Amino acid sequence: LPRRAPRCPATAKAPSPLFDSLDTFTDRHVGPDDHETSFMLSKLGYDSLDSFLAATVPPTIRIPATTISDVTMPALSESELHARAKALGSQNRKFKSYIGMGYHNAVVPPVILRNVSEVFLIRSLPTCLTLSQVMENPAWYTPYTPYQPEVAQGRLESLVNYQTMIASLTGMDIANASLLDEATAAAEGMVMSYVHSGQKRKSFFVDSAVLPQTIAVLRTRAKGSGIRLLVGDSRAALEDPELRADLAGILLQYPDVNGQISDYRTLADQVHASGALVVCATDLLALTLLTPPGEWGADIVLGNSARFGVPAGYGGPHGAFFAVTDGLKRKMPGRLIGRSKDTMGNPAYRLALQTREQHIRREKATSNICTSQALLANMAAMYAIYHGPVGLTRIAEKIHLFTQLLHAGVERLGFRVVNNAYFDTLTIDVSPVCKSAEVVHAAAALKSINLRRVDSTHVGVTLDESVGYEDLETLVSVFSTTTSGPTEVLASIPEPIATALPASLVRSSEFLPHPVFNTHHSETEMLRYIFHLASKDLSLVHTMIPLGSCTMKLNSTSSMIPLTWPEFGGVHPFAPVDQVEGYKQIIKELETDLCKITGFHSCSIQPNSGAAGEYAGLTVIRAYHESRGEGHRDVCLIPLSAHGTNPASAVMAGLKVVPVKTHGDGNLDLADLKAKAEKHKDNLAAFMITYPSTFGVFEDGVTEACKIIHKNGGQVYLDGANLNAQVGLTNPATCGGDVCHLNLHKTFAIPHGGGGPGVGPICVAEHLAPFLPSHPLVQTGGEKGINAVSAGPFGSASILLISWAYIKMLGGNGLSHSTNVALLSANYMAQRLAGHYTLRFKNDNGRVAHELLIDLAEFDKAAGLKVIDFAKRLQDYGFHPPTCSWPISTCMLIEPTESETLEEIDRFCDAMIQIRKEVEDIISGKQPRDNNLLKNAPHPLSAIVLSEKEWNRPYSREEAAYPTPWLREKKFWPTVSRIDDAFGDLNLLCDCPSVEELAS
Amino acid sequence: LPRRAPRCPATAKAPSPLFDSLDTFTDRHVGPDDHETSFMLSKLGYDSLDSFLAATVPPTIRIPATTISDVTMPALSESELHARAKALGSQNRKFKSYIGMGYHNAVVPPVILRNVSEVFLIRSLPTCLTLSQVMENPAWYTPYTPYQPEVAQGRLESLVNYQTMIASLTGMDIANASLLDEATAAAEGMVMSYVHSGQKRKSFFVDSAVLPQTIAVLRTRAKGSGIRLLVGDSRAALEDPELRADLAGILLQYPDVNGQISDYRTLADQVHASGALVVCATDLLALTLLTPPGEWGADIVLGNSARFGVPAGYGGPHGAFFAVTDGLKRKMPGRLIGRSKDTMGNPAYRLALQTREQHIRREKATSNICTSQALLANMAAMYAIYHGPVGLTRIAEKIHLFTQLLHAGVERLGFRVVNNAYFDTLTIDVSPVCKSAEVVHAAAALKSINLRRVDSTHVGVTLDESVGYEDLETLVSVFSTTTSGPTEVLASIPEPIATALPASLVRSSEFLPHPVFNTHHSETEMLRYIFHLASKDLSLVHTMIPLGSCTMKLNSTSSMIPLTWPEFGGVHPFAPVDQVEGYKQIIKELETDLCKITGFHSCSIQPNSGAAGEYAGLTVIRAYHESRGEGHRDVCLIPLSAHGTNPASAVMAGLKVVPVKTHGDGNLDLADLKAKAEKHKDNLAAFMITYPSTFGVFEDGVTEACKIIHKNGGQVYLDGANLNAQVGLTNPATCGGDVCHLNLHKTFAIPHGGGGPGVGPICVAEHLAPFLPSHPLVQTGGEKGINAVSAGPFGSASILLISWAYIKMLGGNGLSHSTNVALLSANYMAQRLAGHYTLRFKNDNGRVAHELLIDLAEFDKAAGLKVIDFAKRLQDYGFHPPTCSWPISTCMLIEPTESETLEEIDRFCDAMIQIRKEVEDIISGKQPRDNNLLKNAPHPLSAIVLSEKEWNRPYSREEAAYPTPWLREKKFWPTVSRIDDAFGDLNLLCDCPSVEELAS
Ligand SMILES: Cc1ncc(COP(=O)(O)O)c(C=O)c1O
Ligand SMILES: Cc1ncc(COP(=O)(O)O)c(C=O)c1O
Ligand SMILES: O=C([O-])O
Repeated sequence: LPRRAPRCPATAKAPSPLFDSLDTFTDRHVGPDDHETSFMLSKLGYDSLDSFLAATVPPTIRIPATTISDVTMPALSESELHARAKALGSQNRKFKSYIGMGYHNAVVPPVILRNVSEVFLIRSLPTCLTLSQVMENPAWYTPYTPYQPEVAQGRLESLVNYQTMIASLTGMDIANASLLDEATAAAEGMVMSYVHSGQKRKSFFVDSAVLPQTIAVLRTRAKGSGIRLLVGDSRAALEDPELRADLAGILLQYPDVNGQISDYRTLADQVHASGALVVCATDLLALTLLTPPGEWGADIVLGNSARFGVPAGYGGPHGAFFAVTDGLKRKMPGRLIGRSKDTMGNPAYRLALQTREQHIRREKATSNICTSQALLANMAAMYAIYHGPVGLTRIAEKIHLFTQLLHAGVERLGFRVVNNAYFDTLTIDVSPVCKSAEVVHAAAALKSINLRRVDSTHVGVTLDESVGYEDLETLVSVFSTTTSGPTEVLASIPEPIATALPASLVRSSEFLPHPVFNTHHSETEMLRYIFHLASKDLSLVHTMIPLGSCTMKLNSTSSMIPLTWPEFGGVHPFAPVDQVEGYKQIIKELETDLCKITGFHSCSIQPNSGAAGEYAGLTVIRAYHESRGEGHRDVCLIPLSAHGTNPASAVMAGLKVVPVKTHGDGNLDLADLKAKAEKHKDNLAAFMITYPSTFGVFEDGVTEACKIIHKNGGQVYLDGANLNAQVGLTNPATCGGDVCHLNLHKTFAIPHGGGGPGVGPICVAEHLAPFLPSHPLVQTGGEKGINAVSAGPFGSASILLISWAYIKMLGGNGLSHSTNVALLSANYMAQRLAGHYTLRFKNDNGRVAHELLIDLAEFDKAAGLKVIDFAKRLQDYGFHPPTCSWPISTCMLIEPTESETLEEIDRFCDAMIQIRKEVEDIISGKQPRDNNLLKNAPHPLSAIVLSEKEWNRPYSREEAAYPTPWLREKKFWPTVSRIDDAFGDLNLLCDCPSVEELAS
Repeated sequence: LPRRAPRCPATAKAPSPLFDSLDTFTDRHVGPDDHETSFMLSKLGYDSLDSFLAATVPPTIRIPATTISDVTMPALSESELHARAKALGSQNRKFKSYIGMGYHNAVVPPVILRNVSEVFLIRSLPTCLTLSQVMENPAWYTPYTPYQPEVAQGRLESLVNYQTMIASLTGMDIANASLLDEATAAAEGMVMSYVHSGQKRKSFFVDSAVLPQTIAVLRTRAKGSGIRLLVGDSRAALEDPELRADLAGILLQYPDVNGQISDYRTLADQVHASGALVVCATDLLALTLLTPPGEWGADIVLGNSARFGVPAGYGGPHGAFFAVTDGLKRKMPGRLIGRSKDTMGNPAYRLALQTREQHIRREKATSNICTSQALLANMAAMYAIYHGPVGLTRIAEKIHLFTQLLHAGVERLGFRVVNNAYFDTLTIDVSPVCKSAEVVHAAAALKSINLRRVDSTHVGVTLDESVGYEDLETLVSVFSTTTSGPTEVLASIPEPIATALPASLVRSSEFLPHPVFNTHHSETEMLRYIFHLASKDLSLVHTMIPLGSCTMKLNSTSSMIPLTWPEFGGVHPFAPVDQVEGYKQIIKELETDLCKITGFHSCSIQPNSGAAGEYAGLTVIRAYHESRGEGHRDVCLIPLSAHGTNPASAVMAGLKVVPVKTHGDGNLDLADLKAKAEKHKDNLAAFMITYPSTFGVFEDGVTEACKIIHKNGGQVYLDGANLNAQVGLTNPATCGGDVCHLNLHKTFAIPHGGGGPGVGPICVAEHLAPFLPSHPLVQTGGEKGINAVSAGPFGSASILLISWAYIKMLGGNGLSHSTNVALLSANYMAQRLAGHYTLRFKNDNGRVAHELLIDLAEFDKAAGLKVIDFAKRLQDYGFHPPTCSWPISTCMLIEPTESETLEEIDRFCDAMIQIRKEVEDIISGKQPRDNNLLKNAPHPLSAIVLSEKEWNRPYSREEAAYPTPWLREKKFWPTVSRIDDAFGDLNLLCDCPSVEELAS
């Protein structure tokens, strides 16, 4: 191994002219330097990167090196990027929005802003592992669950806090750990109602006062699921016995889009009497004052938790919550954290009830959700912990008071408030004063204020935590300038005594009584709690996280800095387009770059996860077929090795899944594909393929496969989760695809955030472009666009900045170089491990793609060891285990990415090789099969600090904790021992301990 | 103990009108809530805070409650504060400064900005303990050194990196871990030269091309030290044999203020031949290209390390470096980190050669330096690690290239560059083109550019890392607009081939070859290194740091956020005053608030540490006496219990220290004071007193003492380190003082940063106001102001924002409430510990002030235990030990501050009480005297993970590591065992391991 020489950053850019900036990004992003790549190449027997690439990637699909280069995509240095982001940010005009409709101005407590958002972002823990690793193992529900909660107790505790907060505020039994946004959560509620009826009742009724973006997303989803969606006046509709008989559920908004708060008790009774479910979209802050839906009969309660400390960010990301009654919990979509105990009997958190999810149930899952919004859920939970029930109530009361004052103010000016019962939102009839709402909007614009556009004679105003008394005065003055009435309105209004909440709906029940919400209220306590939780979690700041298919690369500081600028944080997604030129330009540039990279014609960045992208892409394909009079095409071919989200998304799009086989060598069985394509040719809609395959190999047959599909009338959907192996070398279009999604939270460096946020844009060929998703409130998508797939017109808009910055800073050369090094590192690793482990698949030249699959099956027989035992033992070595038991139950899928240095890669290989030696001692009988370093792994501190008597192990403490010398200098310790999942699912506890529990 | 109820934030503010902001700060800053303060009061037997305060603070010095209240000092909420900071920030005009003179625009690598500045700030480690705890123990140099390196290895390693970097770049043998700024470092160099001559040679010669602010500070200091300061042409001056005979040293600037690089070899030989020392002020970045001063004969090399990634911040803070030849190391001022080993033989860092310092040598110390600039030194070291020698050279070469292009450009336009050899700075004669430099300055101003004002026909331009090619074009265009010459100048200039560095001074020696500077060049590696180091250090994010006299309170996020705004970061300290209205206003408000708080008339925020404040205050007193024809007054009375900085500062100000006794009850011996004051009445200059005393008690006699001094013609200097016990209850003016310094890094919440930055403003009575420090370049101070005491006109200007924000957010009520709770918490702690430990001092009512002193002397005899054994054992409990062995060698001084909650205070008391039980086992003989839980403490992980054979302790691993149950959930582990200081000072190693060392 060569001694690490001073870094030569020459590779990435053509020899840089003397005048170029020095703070170039590529050499900071890519781990191995030129010396190290040469060394790796020589170990693999190549004299150049080119010869290595030629042996790795099929020549048939290679694109010219000039396609993605600094000529086509010039690189900006870090400071140039920031200057450009500033310039674009300044094109977003700073209006204060009172638009509401689910989006508010948030006040992020500084201690949370700095220490949760940033620390958590940087220290992001992957959870894609969580959700996928056991997807092909039908015997998942065992103590050997391969998820790694032992090194994730901090994040898990925080998500339990979130679940507890949601359940407590909504008055429901159980809540999950977040969904993508309010609109998709509503869609999940709709589908759950339908499934609950045994798919017998096909109608779902949506109250017309539900948010319009929610209705749009419901339309898209209803179509795929074969649900009859009706929108209208709920009370009137329920008079209809025919509807009642077919009704699966009803969706109500509480308070509704106009701010009105209605008592839905009677309605709920009626719905229940007819055998349907009540789904309620609601607002967490309002629930501090209002009777929670759980107390008036809702079965499913959902909404957006963003106003708990998450900035609007032009629409996202934010966490959606989803809570149900106890009876519905096994049908609930999304991740659920529960309490269990570890082998030493200590309490420990981990995922609960995973059998509900797509990675287990595949096409039988009711939802395709995988990546969700963990980071945003954590922020919202921290917000509630910081304020506590008393603080939250004070915030809500103040907003309500201000809304009452505004009410009194505008009425004094002659306007008429339409809604009589409200929390924070007024719908105001302007006609008594001026002839058109436009007059008021124009007056507002002069004060840099946005109001909600209701119709030609009504405007809407929604207040939030950020509104101070001066803002209120300005707001009233907007109205007063349109009249000849008094100007000093507010000061003369007496403080209201009664509230404008309906008396029957004033909350009487306690909420958030748990100690965690009543303890950390000083900044010192909050800070220590945040850091204490973070200290339990292994993250990229400690070591590589070589999760195959997850692409855990550097999340650079420079790409994340603009995100926290006010220019980007405070923008309402429905702000007039002329106020968001900066965002528009960034989105346009990102879409253009993604099209260059994928070889496609158009892009939509609306989907806010990979799975959402799959669903969007398939729905686009369906719309395309329909436009050609082939709406009947509904068969989707999917290889057995595909990620669980693929079949689940296909079903959501209304497709029938037909599996395709793979050969023993890992390649797609083209004969089987051909046979099935031909068999279904009249109904063939699509074929979904992941490339390089989920087995980590570039298959030669991909172009052939695409030809077969096209010949039989189908469209090719390319799952772009593995795009990190393609950029600059090939692309989905060249491979023969028609549409693909990308995971910006993998390939394009958005941090995983402990399970989200993510962005799953889709890129499509020209013929599909007209069908890209639209939005009811903001012009976007194709001219024949499908309905919206996300609440926000541009999905999780604010974090697009990260991928935009990543691409701009690398430039074409840097992007390609990253791919090359990702491939090289994986192959180097494969070579080092090959003498010790069975490499499951490689191409004819012996090469893998950007990840490698090792098979541990042989050790089960020889030593009674399963994949999980290796994974837990890796924890003792301070590493995060790779993806386990997916896509093959006996395998580990390892992906180093380009950001890890040779030193770190070697350290990981050394650990694996050392573990192999430990295994040898078990095989040879030196160590017992049931009590050895692997079976007992991981060894947390509590297991090491045992007294002599208790230490009844056939190995020493040093062997357990410090199997290699470098661990003495640097080791991450798991905080609990192996966790008993069976116990946890049998004794399901998904909320924080209460006062009583803690006392006992 | 009452169950922690939802927080009621009512105390701080008068019942808040409904319209007030909810994000008030006081209830976030103060740990105990109203329930907890009531509980503590009841335990102490008081029914109200008022009755408690009456028993604690002498009524004679109390000020009316109305003095410091929300009426006199209204509170802003967190968001109001940010809005106000934004508004003020926007009043600083954004000019790009090319002024140079020691201040440059820095490019902070984003990974360092986010993860060092912020993480290190928040996780600030105190080092005032380091420097003060053993000050009264002449037997300090023992294995029982009471400093806590076991929980500070990360910061110590980083400071060693800094020392290594400085030594390597300057070509010197050894460097310290930072001084306050370049000017004070030069003053230290001057005094060292004088001391080196045995105080026999009284002349110090300063080259006239040294920075003017340095010369000003030298003047101040030369006067106090009795040194004859001469400024002029060095070469000419050295011709004078008389001067040569009396010459202690000479100060040269390399490159000099005009940018010129001179070969000083012959001059250095001459100086050495005459028996004097060569002191050189230099620029680190230039030294990557230039022969380092160590290679041409400098004995002392110093400067400012700010251009290594530290923003100008309107003058500070920044780290100054100081390096010397091996022979001078024992006379070097400031902190020095060295390598030693722990009891297990593992390498470990700790402070070296502490016997040089003021806390040991008091009035015999040559420097008073205590708090220095650890945080800024860490940032600079991280910058060098990130870039490495190759990267640093590229940066320097590019700046030099641009400077050459500028040179060619302005000459083509007809201007004349005066200096022929340069690195980054040109001095340009404008007279061939325009009649006055003002024409050029005016043209520059139109482009928002500042150039250096040299004189009426010359301007100066200094380039730095932030300058891009476009900036260069703009710069040339400034000159071209003043001529009728060509406009497209730059493009036509060929790239220069030769450099403008003198051939004889091109660097040939290698620098920074150490692995640490050649490894962490990718962002992932850098991030992991930063977090790895931080993980070794105990900080406020883990637990209270109850260091008596250090006031480790919350450093709130909101008070630190504005600091990172570009509005405040990039401002040059010598920018025209009309560009810094925002800074001016903030400084004015802070000075006004500090005057209100201290009861004084005027304030200077120039001193950049507490010790610097002492020196400034005493110098002001001397100037006052002088102005009255009493310049002969030179006696300073100082109690024996005073902090080591007091006598050291007095000596620096040219005063003779006469110690005053204290009584057995801890109070000042007024009779002794009176006797000494009368004895010295003709020469009495000052009396220095700390209040409350360093023993942690409000002495009744303070007013009487001040009267005695005044009666005898002296002035009273009040050391304000303990002001946290005074704010709102009393003040230094009411106590009878004439001048005091404040430690903004204690009382006013600037984080300690691991040993700085600090700010030590002085407040003075009206008669002293005319003498407040001036500055040669910016108008400040009194009309008869003493010379400057810091390089920057407003010292560490940027961090003043923190204290400004702290005061504004608390408001008068919050400030007073903080004091009250600080007193209450200390007294509650005293009460809980009193049954188990000997409380050394209290007032007649049994009350202590804001800290308490417990005496452990009895355990030496009974169990062979010293203070250090208790301190190290506290580390095993996860706590940072209190101040040890100061102000009494057998004592611990404990200060909880107002920010700690009752729960944390109780946890600390529980730990102390439990340790007392462990001691009982030793006293009773159950545990051996030489091998027990205390003597073997701390127990790092490496000591716990020992095999059965090696664990030869008379207690279990659990007793060692988890003596209380809460440690299992949350424990901070020391990373090394107890450190052998004797070994380290005998085998002095103050730099990073080299390649060879690491290999062996
Ligand atoms: C191959 C593959 N497809 C799809 C997905 C789904 O992406 P997401 O988690 O963003 O929904 C993943 C990963 O999670 C994946 O690995
Ligand atoms: C009583 C006292 N005086 C003076 C000082 C010196 O302050 P600084 O460290 O800022 O120089 C300190 C603390 O360090 C102190 O505790
Ligand atoms: O979640 C993943 O399957 O990668």
